[in-house]
Amino acid sequence: MQAELIFTGTELLLGEVLNTHAQYLSQQMAALGIEVILHTTVGDNWDRLAEAFEIALRRADLIVITGGLGPTSDDLTKDIVARVLGLPMLPDGQTLQLLREFVDRRGSSLSESMARQAYFPAGARVLPNPAGTAPGALLEYQGRIIILLPGPPRELKAIFEASVVPYLISLGNRGMVTRTRLLKMTGISESEVQERIGNLGGQGNPGIAYLAKPGEVHVRISAQAPSVAVADRMIDELLEKVRQRLADYVFGMDDEVLEEVVGKLLVKKGLTCALAESCTGGLVAARLTSIPGSSAYFWGSVVAYDNRVKEKVLGVPAGVLETHGAVSRPTAIAMAEGVRNLMGTHLGLSITGIAGPGGGTPVKPVGLTYIALATAEGTTCQEFHFPGHRQAVRQGAANAALNMIRLHLLEQLKAGN
Amino acid sequence: MQAELIFTGTELLLGEVLNTHAQYLSQQMAALGIEVILHTTVGDNWDRLAEAFEIALRRADLIVITGGLGPTSDDLTKDIVARVLGLPMLPDGQTLQLLREFVDRRGSSLSESMARQAYFPAGARVLPNPAGTAPGALLEYQGRIIILLPGPPRELKAIFEASVVPYLISLGNRGMVTRTRLLKMTGISESEVQERIGNLGGQGNPGIAYLAKPGEVHVRISAQAPSVAVADRMIDELLEKVRQRLADYVFGMDDEVLEEVVGKLLVKKGLTCALAESCTGGLVAARLTSIPGSSAYFWGSVVAYDNRVKEKVLGVPAGVLETHGAVSRPTAIAMAEGVRNLMGTHLGLSITGIAGPGGGTPVKPVGLTYIALATAEGTTCQEFHFPGHRQAVRQGAANAALNMIRLHLLEQLKAGN
Repeated sequence: MQAELIFTGTELLLGEVLNTHAQYLSQQMAALGIEVILHTTVGDNWDRLAEAFEIALRRADLIVITGGLGPTSDDLTKDIVARVLGLPMLPDGQTLQLLREFVDRRGSSLSESMARQAYFPAGARVLPNPAGTAPGALLEYQGRIIILLPGPPRELKAIFEASVVPYLISLGNRGMVTRTRLLKMTGISESEVQERIGNLGGQGNPGIAYLAKPGEVHVRISAQAPSVAVADRMIDELLEKVRQRLADYVFGMDDEVLEEVVGKLLVKKGLTCALAESCTGGLVAARLTSIPGSSAYFWGSVVAYDNRVKEKVLGVPAGVLETHGAVSRPTAIAMAEGVRNLMGTHLGLSITGIAGPGGGTPVKPVGLTYIALATAEGTTCQEFHFPGHRQAVRQGAANAALNMIRLHLLEQLKAGN
Repeated sequence: MQAELIFTGTELLLGEVLNTHAQYLSQQMAALGIEVILHTTVGDNWDRLAEAFEIALRRADLIVITGGLGPTSDDLTKDIVARVLGLPMLPDGQTLQLLREFVDRRGSSLSESMARQAYFPAGARVLPNPAGTAPGALLEYQGRIIILLPGPPRELKAIFEASVVPYLISLGNRGMVTRTRLLKMTGISESEVQERIGNLGGQGNPGIAYLAKPGEVHVRISAQAPSVAVADRMIDELLEKVRQRLADYVFGMDDEVLEEVVGKLLVKKGLTCALAESCTGGLVAARLTSIPGSSAYFWGSVVAYDNRVKEKVLGVPAGVLETHGAVSRPTAIAMAEGVRNLMGTHLGLSITGIAGPGGGTPVKPVGLTYIALATAEGTTCQEFHFPGHRQAVRQGAANAALNMIRLHLLEQLKAGN
């Protein structure tokens, strides 16, 4: 079954309101195994909604229209649907009764505009609104299903969950469910990912999609099948092949974030860590501490933005800063060892780089970053060049720093230490 | 001028991603006086995008398509536009050169998939991407304007603001314009703001809208008029009244962020600052250092997540920690004075609180936070109770900390110090 969603409301076209219905209804449809092929948003405009509805009728099995069911003159949806399908508008007795009770309680009488909410295209099933006065409606028309829902999010969700979900489930096996998994990588570019796994297929079913984030690449694997079990099996098979080709670049799945993965590994190894941050300015500490329970393994960070702090607090020798500069391998190493000594943790990680926009030179361009990791066994340091602007360089450096801890701990686990 | 917006990306139809582009671009168009008549969202699907584009070409003067400009095989937009318009795809020399430099810096070579980003429909104007590798494009074709923008929000906005806005403005007067200004506040609740300015009008034109953010309240004032000058005058009159009623709660306008306002005040006073962060875990430092040039006034932060770091690095007396606990007025004061002494800055600011979800007690519940500011004249400390979950408490604490510096500096400026 293929669905199209039509959202009505001039406020959406003016950007006054964020269209959260699009995400909510799309998620619900995916969970029900219904493929959404198109979203359309139109204003409170007779011709445009009529045209969008006519086009959708030619393409989709299921059409959901949101908004325009209320009492005011810009609420046009039911009239337009009736006109396009050639149906008369008829009153629904029960809805009229509920509206009368509603206005009675408020001590007023039923106005003509209020009463419009009780009129529906002939043959429509009325979907009661537990959260407001405008009911939804459902029409089966020449093999198509048309569902009308009110615009206010609370009312839309209440009707969808109370009436629409049971109806769609009652249609029985609609053939296909869609399942997806997200594979998250860092330390590799989007195009490199595609070159490594591009010939695994993934243009059809199951499918592979690529999403680039600052410092990360996500690969989405999706599959359609008659059952969840079969779809999951299709995904798992492809996932295994993708994993093999991308190995240690993969840090997590689905909702997992890098700082959480690093935290779990530190707990597993029973290790503590401290940071010395220059260009990332506290970003890595903020990410690590965003995870509840991080106080078990993260002791603290010295954000050494000024060279005097690098020297005085972290103990970077003045000679090193003078000879090599703040953004250099020797400074990174001294910072990592300095914070490890200062705080007395198992690991000390440092980041020093040029985030831009100023501060770059031909020899040390914007993006150049050194990241060092000090452990009981010694200190390693890596040079990176992060592309893009200030925030992209900072995010790239933060990801690379977290990834350096991750890879170190993975190696230790592999070596059985 | 009438515009249609087409969003591409299967992740939108699956509900994995909220379509924030729809709101951003619609707001931008409204501000430019361009009427948006329709939004369409399609997946990464050749036929559906081609059909949506063909339909839009028949209706709209301006068509904006987002997404699908990257290097991978599901990036189809430019090829589809070229096919529908009957144009060949041609390489752009400058883009190719930039891509070569980009891969050179990373020590790799230009792959075929990367190079696809440098091909455009013949006659397209290339819109440089200051935030990524995939440029946008602009085509004028038989009286229609077609604009292609990349999907990542930062890149889309960067290109839109740098290239598209100036181009659309250069097309000249398009009738009514909508102008908006955003007034940003902290340290006050949304309902309190509404009570103070609710009777100023703002239900019509000009209009007032309220937006609550973690730790901030934004008030949007908008006006429609035949010219920018008239709309701006309408806004300015209302703005002045709103400002009078909210006084020092207002920290900035439009794109200004609190950390930037604090930075400007520090520069104005010629002062330097250092931080001692516990529950915010580096968040305040990360925000201050997100501003280019912050090294002029921000020297560093000690993220003292573990009590041993509070004691050893910041010099908080063990007795204070034992008697009063880490989240207490005396500890906050000792942290602020400790970091000011350690780094030798004019100001020392500390934050210690219980972010949750764990760690709360009846006496010290989740959300309890002490923020202290140490200066040459002495140290002040305030107690706060921030509502909500871990990230909301941390954001609330970060905002309150930055605001404490802001108010201190404003007072100094008023006193003529």
